Amino acid sequence: MDRFVYADNAATTKVSQKALDAMMPYFTEFYGNPSSTYKFAYDARRAVEVARGKIAAAIGAAPYKPGDKHKEIFFTAGGTESDNWAIKGALELRASKGKHIITSSVEHHAVMHTLQYLAKHGYDVTFLPVDKYGMISLDDLKAAIRPDTVLITIIAANNEIGTILPIREIGAIARENKILFHTDAVQAVGHIEVDVKSMNVDMLSLASHKFRGPKGAGALYVKHGIMLPPLMHGGGHEDGRRSGTENVPGIVGMAAALEEAVENLGANMKNLAAMRDKIIENALKLPRVSLTGHPTERLPGTASFVIECIEGEALVLTLANAGICASSGSACSSGSLDPSHVLLSIGLPHEIAHGSLRLSLNEDNTMEDADYIVEKLPQVVDRLRKMSPLWEG
Amino acid sequence: MDRFVYADNAATTKVSQKALDAMMPYFTEFYGNPSSTYKFAYDARRAVEVARGKIAAAIGAAPYKPGDKHKEIFFTAGGTESDNWAIKGALELRASKGKHIITSSVEHHAVMHTLQYLAKHGYDVTFLPVDKYGMISLDDLKAAIRPDTVLITIIAANNEIGTILPIREIGAIARENKILFHTDAVQAVGHIEVDVKSMNVDMLSLASHKFRGPKGAGALYVKHGIMLPPLMHGGGHEDGRRSGTENVPGIVGMAAALEEAVENLGANMKNLAAMRDKIIENALKLPRVSLTGHPTERLPGTASFVIECIEGEALVLTLANAGICASSGSACSSGSLDPSHVLLSIGLPHEIAHGSLRLSLNEDNTMEDADYIVEKLPQVVDRLRKMSPLWEG
Repeated sequence: MDRFVYADNAATTKVSQKALDAMMPYFTEFYGNPSSTYKFAYDARRAVEVARGKIAAAIGAAPYKPGDKHKEIFFTAGGTESDNWAIKGALELRASKGKHIITSSVEHHAVMHTLQYLAKHGYDVTFLPVDKYGMISLDDLKAAIRPDTVLITIIAANNEIGTILPIREIGAIARENKILFHTDAVQAVGHIEVDVKSMNVDMLSLASHKFRGPKGAGALYVKHGIMLPPLMHGGGHEDGRRSGTENVPGIVGMAAALEEAVENLGANMKNLAAMRDKIIENALKLPRVSLTGHPTERLPGTASFVIECIEGEALVLTLANAGICASSGSACSSGSLDPSHVLLSIGLPHEIAHGSLRLSLNEDNTMEDADYIVEKLPQVVDRLRKMSPLWEG
Repeated sequence: MDRFVYADNAATTKVSQKALDAMMPYFTEFYGNPSSTYKFAYDARRAVEVARGKIAAAIGAAPYKPGDKHKEIFFTAGGTESDNWAIKGALELRASKGKHIITSSVEHHAVMHTLQYLAKHGYDVTFLPVDKYGMISLDDLKAAIRPDTVLITIIAANNEIGTILPIREIGAIARENKILFHTDAVQAVGHIEVDVKSMNVDMLSLASHKFRGPKGAGALYVKHGIMLPPLMHGGGHEDGRRSGTENVPGIVGMAAALEEAVENLGANMKNLAAMRDKIIENALKLPRVSLTGHPTERLPGTASFVIECIEGEALVLTLANAGICASSGSACSSGSLDPSHVLLSIGLPHEIAHGSLRLSLNEDNTMEDADYIVEKLPQVVDRLRKMSPLWEG
């Protein structure tokens, strides 16, 4: 292979050097338990609290510094835990009000499968439809609200097709109706501007490994005043909200990575959009290739397509042979033979949804990577189509 | 200070060099998502499966190698998640049979607080009393079993006083009565012989950072055939049992640390017991100092005491000034003014329970550390007692 291009950053990322450097001392030097009271453990405790402040600042939560009483950032093991906690916690908190939840039909599995589980256990879930770009309609949302609606949970930016949803407007509707609003912002945080206050968000999930932090760390933003009950019971860490010894290196690495991402956000977004657009422009020159997701309201690093008469997994493996790591659908649903619920929701027929491709770039990529993708993609598509009984081109 | 002695290894440990070396490549070299299908991600996926096999071997679970169909080890974010999952999952699994749970009164908070929460939500929990050593009675256990008992959860080795409970016998009783049996073995795994088969265990929690692995990783052993429903819903990782992108470096580091601990278990136990016994022998020469926990059935690295007329937190801070990191009660309950439920359960009056001290050693400690503790402890105790209005010595 001529080049190695990792273009699957929506699945997971390489840990940034800054994040790795930040976390290293906490494995073998400042390894104390943050709950311990002696001075040696203070370094670990302080590092966790400094990280909390950095993450709060990165997403527009209330400013936080070590020693502050009120926190809005609570550390978890990742996006899935944050989503599970936000949803199950909100339902427990508002149990006396009702059991109706509103969501979209293009959520990440961590939200969708949690809600499908709850729907089998006495909850009533409305899955809002989306248009061909993966957008919900605000009118649909308003129409779905009932007196017993206790939670709206809508993804901020879709993990498969990159569409950015109108979180601010959704949040305003939720607030007006006094309904808790959670957003899975795992693909958004560190990649686009995220401000929980102006976005009217009550709870927001983020995951370290999507923005060049380590795997195994995440956070849930919970607006001050919302007494979200815990999902993890135990030693009372995180003000009793999330028990379990803090993953100090993971938390420190996550905060360093997010700080770095946000510091350079404007430049990163511009660079990524240029690479993305080059890939999109060239891919769309190929016959029977369509963009998935919104043409403009999309993540700067995500180029996603359906390529007719090709099976997505074959495409991914052939691209990998050419040195390009990409994905078909989300990483989580890989290996499954069912086409993605997201692609079906935007109205694609089964046979076309099977031919999906997602190229997701981040700060580690360069324009040379984009050029390489532009060079190789047509060759790979052509080769696979020639082998396809469906292709008559 | 003359020496730095970290003697709080039951709270958390320094990551071993072997564990750190093992995990490092997975941050920036083999950083793929184990769920991705291309070759680059295979290294990460394989590393997770090799780690699973190592952990299975270390605790006597069914042998496992990459590609095997049935797994008994499921990765989590730590002991607290494992405990929460085992308990809540077992209750969901056996919902049609009943809502009665049997536990001990000396559980870790991750079990105790989970059960106290459940007791407020329609479940019926029997907390078995313990004797002065922290041992439950098997007759009490048998007597507590009811037709609607669905789960027995008993700690394998106590985190505050080091007492090792008769897990094999408890497991046999549970199995005879067709009741699911979970043990929180967070303090046992890597420190004493643990064999899930001969111990008749259905589910077992373990936590990486208690045996020189990194924080933020843990596992739950679930006996083959027990279809424990998930606590984390989402992308369907871990055979659909525990969703969330795998913490690859954490899992690899945990497995390396446990492999190392188990390889050297016999020698470690002997060395630790010698250090522990030296500390105990000398501490008990001080007036009005008593051992807590069982005199012989105790963790090889844990020396625990109550020291009358001294406040435990003051003792911990004064020892820290002398370079010794120790704890009073568990790390999790530090900062709380309530005496530990474990110490109250073994029959200590409030005022004595307040003067608790735990010194917990591991493979990083040497006999010189024990000697240093033996030298400093009497000086610190003497100094604090001279300042205490309660002391009339």
